[in-house]
Amino acid sequence: MNIPNVEIPRIVVIGGGFGGITIAQSLRQKNAQVVLIDKNNYHTFQPLLYQVATAGLEPDSIAYPLRKLFENQPNLFFRLAEAQRIDTENNILETSIGPIDFDYLVIASGSDTNFFGMKELEKLSMTMKSVSEALDLRSYILQNFESALLTSDLEEQNSYMNFVLVGAGPTGVELAGALAELKRHVLPKDYPDLDLRRMKINLVEAADKVLPPMSKQASEKALEYLQNLGVNVWLNTTVENYDGETVTIKDGKNFKTKTLIWSAGVKGAIINGLKERAIEHGRIAVDEFNKVKGYHNIFAIGDVALMKTVQYPKGHPMVAPVANQQGAHLSNNFTKELKGQPMEPFKYFDKGSMATIGRNRAVVDLHKFRFQGTFAWLVWMFVHLISLVGFRNKIVTFFNWVYNYFIFEKGVRLIIRPYKRK
Amino acid sequence: MNIPNVEIPRIVVIGGGFGGITIAQSLRQKNAQVVLIDKNNYHTFQPLLYQVATAGLEPDSIAYPLRKLFENQPNLFFRLAEAQRIDTENNILETSIGPIDFDYLVIASGSDTNFFGMKELEKLSMTMKSVSEALDLRSYILQNFESALLTSDLEEQNSYMNFVLVGAGPTGVELAGALAELKRHVLPKDYPDLDLRRMKINLVEAADKVLPPMSKQASEKALEYLQNLGVNVWLNTTVENYDGETVTIKDGKNFKTKTLIWSAGVKGAIINGLKERAIEHGRIAVDEFNKVKGYHNIFAIGDVALMKTVQYPKGHPMVAPVANQQGAHLSNNFTKELKGQPMEPFKYFDKGSMATIGRNRAVVDLHKFRFQGTFAWLVWMFVHLISLVGFRNKIVTFFNWVYNYFIFEKGVRLIIRPYKRK
Repeated sequence: MNIPNVEIPRIVVIGGGFGGITIAQSLRQKNAQVVLIDKNNYHTFQPLLYQVATAGLEPDSIAYPLRKLFENQPNLFFRLAEAQRIDTENNILETSIGPIDFDYLVIASGSDTNFFGMKELEKLSMTMKSVSEALDLRSYILQNFESALLTSDLEEQNSYMNFVLVGAGPTGVELAGALAELKRHVLPKDYPDLDLRRMKINLVEAADKVLPPMSKQASEKALEYLQNLGVNVWLNTTVENYDGETVTIKDGKNFKTKTLIWSAGVKGAIINGLKERAIEHGRIAVDEFNKVKGYHNIFAIGDVALMKTVQYPKGHPMVAPVANQQGAHLSNNFTKELKGQPMEPFKYFDKGSMATIGRNRAVVDLHKFRFQGTFAWLVWMFVHLISLVGFRNKIVTFFNWVYNYFIFEKGVRLIIRPYKRK
Repeated sequence: MNIPNVEIPRIVVIGGGFGGITIAQSLRQKNAQVVLIDKNNYHTFQPLLYQVATAGLEPDSIAYPLRKLFENQPNLFFRLAEAQRIDTENNILETSIGPIDFDYLVIASGSDTNFFGMKELEKLSMTMKSVSEALDLRSYILQNFESALLTSDLEEQNSYMNFVLVGAGPTGVELAGALAELKRHVLPKDYPDLDLRRMKINLVEAADKVLPPMSKQASEKALEYLQNLGVNVWLNTTVENYDGETVTIKDGKNFKTKTLIWSAGVKGAIINGLKERAIEHGRIAVDEFNKVKGYHNIFAIGDVALMKTVQYPKGHPMVAPVANQQGAHLSNNFTKELKGQPMEPFKYFDKGSMATIGRNRAVVDLHKFRFQGTFAWLVWMFVHLISLVGFRNKIVTFFNWVYNYFIFEKGVRLIIRPYKRK
């Protein structure tokens, strides 16, 4: 991998997501060499991926070059590589560009989509976990309308204009809201030959409410907002299969659609080579110091890590703030470790959660306050804007939001690379 | 193709480039149905493609959705399709989405890269004629530096950091300038482990000057600017082959490089089905009304059209202003034709040409004035900014330019889809 060997300890970090960049930056002043690997050369701000998918933003608004992020950090070495296997005996990480030995390993590999074993559905559905998947989805949505234009068979046309989103977590809800805005403000102008009233947005959720982890108040208001926007919400509804044409529902209604968007489950992006007992519920089991069970120098943080506590017996929610806090905390613990002091246990401070549903509408659950509506929407925008990495990305995103808001437009409805379904 | 059949004449336009959108827009008030087809759903502002390739701009700055461009033009029907063959007997255009019959056909298909029959070079070189090619080039340039990092073999490292650009027309010159700026201001920060002085930019030109169609004064100044930026310019140098590792030069020096960027030739993007005598020098021969030789209702405009005149015995230059002027002129001629009046011959008004070579440096040849330097650079920026289609694209581009200028940065050095050489 051509990285200088030095006398100080080498900490290898897998993944440049929220957890990975937080710990890598926090280790800046530490007496350690940090090697960060990621399969992309950029950090992705995942909470806004749905806006890339719905033609509101280009990738440069939400992706930030990792090399730029670390350009003034001489103890950090970035390598564009995929982690393949951990050789825990010899403290070596095998990657797509060769092996690297480590003194400490931090697994911050995030999460993958969980299809719960449904192979056909996995092959034929769309997902939105990365920039390239979001671009594929954008192309595919637009291609559907181009295809709808070409047929005079009404049933086939409906199938192109029918969108089924599975999973009413923040991703599903925000995407449904954005599609509803496209339907209302943008697509009728682009496709005057199509009767856009026949475009359907179906949001399917196995639980009995949308945004399951949020408060009852937020869930109810979000449901109301979605319905006002014309989204068909199907609660207590479990998807069993999708064959590319029909979504099969457990005892019930089927949907004829060319597009199933799957955001109904995630699982840890586990790296091979760990003992079986270190894996639990599709995540990597860690103790209260984020140390992987059964190892003394391997750690896991963020989505991939399962830390069972009294307050979170099933582990922490798989969200950015947990990853950020675990990253910062583990960095402090490394300082203690390197000084020979004992590590301190991690404690999650839950600042709350929020989701937006189209323009002027959002729901916010804070520690003590809950609110919905326009003010919640402004809070949502403010929090996401300041959380974006880099001044340039904040400005570009802000401009696009202002433009889209006042012009009722989505500027980037470009099919750069047409998506071909497998 | 599912387009309503109406009593008024149908004009089918192939291509949404400068010529195609100009004529389609000019036909707005005419008593005709206009069908525009393009293989992309956007218009590409080709003069700035090199900035997409060098991480200065995202596609949304220079691509404009065609449907948006025509959203208030009820007589226009856009279809995302590729023209395949003209059935001139029956006045039918065969496309990737089925046949369409026409009363008049306007071929505005632009140009393709001309490799002059060098098959191996064609397969292994990079080009920059479309947004996706520019994105491939951006990825590939950045991937080269990631690869250079991984080897300690100096010769291999040099090969990754050696760039050979063939053709010193505006594209080659502007790209060489942008690469030189990356070398000077951006890459050393991103790759502190690499000795960027070893990055070489070679600009190879068969003629005896850079920017061959421009004035002697402009060519000389451009050469000076390029050399000041550290670009190695090789005049009177003809490339014979590239095998993926070595560029072979006719009687002379070879270059070891992983990257050959070919911008040494273009040819008309000819549509099949025309008689042989309508094709001349790789373009479609037209008369002074842009009517294709041997046909009464088929026209060609822009790059693809070869109109020999006294002033331009080899046809007009293959540049945007010719396409724009021919598009507008042909639209007026259609009005006359539909009224039963005779058409008027086309006359090109050459406003001049310009090229930029890195920050603060450009060369401008106007009708009466020639100037170079900072003022020329400001003129270049102003002309390109106002020529961009759409208010949003102007603003986004302007912001990026200001940002890149003051921060000495290129914001979008993202490898979204890694490029794999065939």
